[in-house]
Amino acid sequence: MGEAATPRATEATEATAAIATTGAATPRATELAEAAIAGDRLALARLLTAVEDRSALAEAAMRQLYPMAGRAHLVGITGPPGSGKSTLVAALIGEVRSVGRSVAVVAVDPSSPITGGALLGDRVRMQAYAGDRDVFIRSMASRGHAGGLAATTTAAAAVLDAAGFDLVLIETVGTGQSEVEVAAAADTTVVLEAPEMGDEVQAIKAGLLEVADLVVVNKGDRPGAARTAAQLRAMLVPSVGRVATERPQPKRPEVMITTASTGEGVPELLVALDRHRAAGRDEAGTGVRRSRASAQIESIVADKLGARLRAGELASLHGRLVGEVADHRLDPYTAADRLLEAATSDAP
Amino acid sequence: MGEAATPRATEATEATAAIATTGAATPRATELAEAAIAGDRLALARLLTAVEDRSALAEAAMRQLYPMAGRAHLVGITGPPGSGKSTLVAALIGEVRSVGRSVAVVAVDPSSPITGGALLGDRVRMQAYAGDRDVFIRSMASRGHAGGLAATTTAAAAVLDAAGFDLVLIETVGTGQSEVEVAAAADTTVVLEAPEMGDEVQAIKAGLLEVADLVVVNKGDRPGAARTAAQLRAMLVPSVGRVATERPQPKRPEVMITTASTGEGVPELLVALDRHRAAGRDEAGTGVRRSRASAQIESIVADKLGARLRAGELASLHGRLVGEVADHRLDPYTAADRLLEAATSDAP
Repeated sequence: MGEAATPRATEATEATAAIATTGAATPRATELAEAAIAGDRLALARLLTAVEDRSALAEAAMRQLYPMAGRAHLVGITGPPGSGKSTLVAALIGEVRSVGRSVAVVAVDPSSPITGGALLGDRVRMQAYAGDRDVFIRSMASRGHAGGLAATTTAAAAVLDAAGFDLVLIETVGTGQSEVEVAAAADTTVVLEAPEMGDEVQAIKAGLLEVADLVVVNKGDRPGAARTAAQLRAMLVPSVGRVATERPQPKRPEVMITTASTGEGVPELLVALDRHRAAGRDEAGTGVRRSRASAQIESIVADKLGARLRAGELASLHGRLVGEVADHRLDPYTAADRLLEAATSDAP
Repeated sequence: MGEAATPRATEATEATAAIATTGAATPRATELAEAAIAGDRLALARLLTAVEDRSALAEAAMRQLYPMAGRAHLVGITGPPGSGKSTLVAALIGEVRSVGRSVAVVAVDPSSPITGGALLGDRVRMQAYAGDRDVFIRSMASRGHAGGLAATTTAAAAVLDAAGFDLVLIETVGTGQSEVEVAAAADTTVVLEAPEMGDEVQAIKAGLLEVADLVVVNKGDRPGAARTAAQLRAMLVPSVGRVATERPQPKRPEVMITTASTGEGVPELLVALDRHRAAGRDEAGTGVRRSRASAQIESIVADKLGARLRAGELASLHGRLVGEVADHRLDPYTAADRLLEAATSDAP
């Protein structure tokens, strides 16, 4: 846990200085990537800070690390506030460790879009693993543009994957579009529910359920857990005569009951995760990996193009067009067309 | 309210057929844009559906509508679940109507990232305005890629602006990054709090407060409202000796108390909104409008580039690179470089 508190001042300065560079390999990036892979937790923490800052250092290191990733099982864990995500994550860490595997957690916080501070909340309980080198916990806050959360989290998961963790848990609160997307981009997505959480959450659930590979009714010692699980199973049976749609068909997830606070049901959850992973080596799993890769690439393309538009030869055109759109003298589509044309024509 | 339930089948087919086209002006788009401006609510609802679907029809119509926008006051209203956003929006509609102004509401729902169904929740109460042509309410669900929520909502607000509404309220739940960004992109951002909402919400609040132009403690008839307002005012005084940072300094919002259910404090809120708008004609307001325009343009650039990458000559290169990244044979940065190079080199 100590690694999560790495001072950021140095990295931030580097990031600012390097923001418009290409992220080509540098001795510093190579050193950091090699140290992180070799098990240096401080180097790993620094690398994740660079990933959060979207610095050129991160890009250079990622170019080296990425081919070593692809072995970890990426598990998204999401659910409404109060469903006990952090407690379940803590219980899952204990279970994973008890079978001798290593585990990293990326906890995405619904924090400030401006100053980007990450809340620790009840993750403090995970300090029990502060001395365990096979457990690594990181809170992430996303800064900058929309869509940054998914890109940053996917990159962080790839770093932890390359660093050799068997399981990478991505914990997000399931109440924002970006947060749900982040969890849904994992190999296996677990949606938590607590028994009988009232009308509003029931409604939100309908959206969350569609991204679930596994639905877990947590707080299973409360009255109503079995009934909630039964209701969920009933909801998850596709209705006969459903209208055909071009949209992806919802998955049909397994419904389980856990009591994270006592550990009840947690071994079964790990078995179910392993089973889903094994099943995911088929076409559906390939589809998930391809769409994650596609989103990653397109986010990087957008970042690079955005940097190109805001710096160099195109900066003055960009600034002028932004002013015209802000004043409603020009529509944003025409502005986008002009920028794209300028960016894609051969520079002299 | 009736307009919100427009059948989507026809529009969806058009959107699908036209997805890779340029969005140039068409007779259909011109007709729809002109009808929407002339006050045809059904045309307006259809146009908003096209905006949600990000269709070429929407782009073509937006090109015509956008220069007519820029007169409405865009007000973001956000806050944690349970703070009474919908009730306040309903009360504000009543107040705005009582002074003879028109108002549109864009309600952003934390709904499905896959099937995109929008929840109506307690907005049913707004059916009181079903027969009032100067009130227009629309629930929006964002589909597709991350960042889509902000782009779609900004475009929808511009359409309602061009259609002549004096006030456009953008209501979002303040618990996801995208949702907070959407509200923060308005001319004036109102953050709601309910008195004494417990520890977790208090923590989230810190992030929300930074985007607030006005902080409203709603449910003012509950015990603790005055104390919560006093605490918020104390939090919002910048601490002496604050460490300098390159990040934007938080704004210093006004703190007010309302009881939306009885209307108490709502006239004062409207006065405060007008006052903030008048003050926003200065440099800070220009900054907000410029950054909104910039985000809009860059989102459209990313969309257009993405469409270009996935279709036409680059589709097979894109598909091959996605496969290599998914298999971890190639890193996503190198893939992005190759795509950008291919996209920006002169096509034969």
